[in-house]
Amino acid sequence: MHDEKILRVLRKSPDEHVSSEELCVLTKISRSAVWKHVEALRAEGYEIEASPHLGYRLIAIPDALIPAEVMWELGTKTIGKAVLSYKKVDSTNDVAYNLAENGIAEGTVVLAEEQAKGKGRHGRKWVSPPKSGIYMSCVLRPEIAPNEIPVITLMAAVAVAKAVRKTTGLQAMIKWPNDILVSGRKICGILTEMKAEQDSVDFIILGIGLNVNASARSLPEGGTSVKEELKAANNIKTVSRTEMAKSIIRSLEAEYSLLKKGGSERIIAEWKSMSAMPGSRIRVVLPNAELEGVAHDIDPDGSLVLRLDSGILKKIWSGDVVMVR
Amino acid sequence: MHDEKILRVLRKSPDEHVSSEELCVLTKISRSAVWKHVEALRAEGYEIEASPHLGYRLIAIPDALIPAEVMWELGTKTIGKAVLSYKKVDSTNDVAYNLAENGIAEGTVVLAEEQAKGKGRHGRKWVSPPKSGIYMSCVLRPEIAPNEIPVITLMAAVAVAKAVRKTTGLQAMIKWPNDILVSGRKICGILTEMKAEQDSVDFIILGIGLNVNASARSLPEGGTSVKEELKAANNIKTVSRTEMAKSIIRSLEAEYSLLKKGGSERIIAEWKSMSAMPGSRIRVVLPNAELEGVAHDIDPDGSLVLRLDSGILKKIWSGDVVMVR
Repeated sequence: MHDEKILRVLRKSPDEHVSSEELCVLTKISRSAVWKHVEALRAEGYEIEASPHLGYRLIAIPDALIPAEVMWELGTKTIGKAVLSYKKVDSTNDVAYNLAENGIAEGTVVLAEEQAKGKGRHGRKWVSPPKSGIYMSCVLRPEIAPNEIPVITLMAAVAVAKAVRKTTGLQAMIKWPNDILVSGRKICGILTEMKAEQDSVDFIILGIGLNVNASARSLPEGGTSVKEELKAANNIKTVSRTEMAKSIIRSLEAEYSLLKKGGSERIIAEWKSMSAMPGSRIRVVLPNAELEGVAHDIDPDGSLVLRLDSGILKKIWSGDVVMVR
Repeated sequence: MHDEKILRVLRKSPDEHVSSEELCVLTKISRSAVWKHVEALRAEGYEIEASPHLGYRLIAIPDALIPAEVMWELGTKTIGKAVLSYKKVDSTNDVAYNLAENGIAEGTVVLAEEQAKGKGRHGRKWVSPPKSGIYMSCVLRPEIAPNEIPVITLMAAVAVAKAVRKTTGLQAMIKWPNDILVSGRKICGILTEMKAEQDSVDFIILGIGLNVNASARSLPEGGTSVKEELKAANNIKTVSRTEMAKSIIRSLEAEYSLLKKGGSERIIAEWKSMSAMPGSRIRVVLPNAELEGVAHDIDPDGSLVLRLDSGILKKIWSGDVVMVR
């Protein structure tokens, strides 16, 4: 708490020193206690200049997924109202799931700098190198039935794609159901998990894994990162993970509140406008079969409509899509 | 293990004593060890006569929901392949859910003699007086998407209603989505819970609470039990809880394997044939509204079709049905 107070004061005067007397008065703690808290902030990665005569000055903030940074001027009401961050977890989705089972509020965001067992869809792995990505899980508690889940997933894909576009300028596209691609390579995966009764959802965990600073060789084949794509585009821009995380949270807030106000049609329209697939030839890999055809449409219920070569339209609820070149 | 072996030998000769020498030979343990195991069986409720000269004889088996009894000549392949039983738990669904999260096999059945926090739909309570009912949860791992869950729920209702009819002779009926009624009163509730990804179910917990020996005054208003209904029908039959539990497990096995073989149409037809509602005037209570009309049909997707007074047909996915008299 004192850490946060001191940080807030230092943030307000980025160009000037704040004397330790002033910090003592504002925080109501002693000079030596102020010093201790400054040391704690430094340990978190804040660069703070200390001058015996002038006092303290904030030089640089860390690009870390810590609550103080992610929540700073975040401006959302629901998503990110609480932020928990960890140096390393097995899986942010598992952490969030356990918290949700114990009743934690909607909008709680779990972040980690590294995942030992990052999870992809259907028990697959999500490669999560330390400090290279955004590994984020968000607890939602919408009043919907399990059959309405696919729209939540589309909403999440729209929110993340928009955040990536806005923050990086990269042309993020969506591959059904919810991969985010840049230049045809996977930059982000979304894993939706839920606990539900037959006719009502208890909670949903939206897991988002976005590759930010990861190098191509640390990623699986077909994967890419913000850094790699900016480099490929000869763009010298650097993207702060903190800003990226905040952008995703704000975007989720916007799309989720639109969805709750009945805006699913608009979300599906946005999804379609960013789809990497329309009219493309695709192969859908199902547990026991494969179907090939043309990506025809997305239904309002979130299913993929595949046009088989026979002309028959087939609704796909589950499966992996491979683009056929 | 020795308990089970001794029990198996005694079961085989219900009219004769088995000498302790014979038991020693068969179990390869000492006389005093045999005695100790017989004592353990007695503690579980088995009545075993011991005669110094003749040996042991099984007089009566307990009407308890213990694995040795429930699994005896059960004859199923999947459901009840493993049975776990507890004297008292908070909720059999919670126990089964935790086991399923840790990977326990499909078909595992969790039973309890008493629930401290028996769960009904939507966070409600299920009154679970000790040794008066069947409190059972079953782990299923079907390869389906979350939107196919309602059919699993209908399947469970059909299985339980058929088991109640077969074992008790009572005319069990189904109220959407999955209450079992006898003479218009609730005798059984089913709670379906699941963990799922957007497009695939990890596992389903089918929770079944059936009132067997409970007295009317120990049950909530509108509730009834097998015992009360048999009494009302002047039927002197007594129903063993063990037999009832076995009957439900066998019935679940039959309907579930039918469903897996693509028999959902037949299951829905059976559901309709046992429905307490068709053509009845009903009120559907939704979170923020109420709808009144006539129960028109059940759709193949498991939703209820309500005919409003305006003639409009409305699909209902979630909600509580009240019969209007």
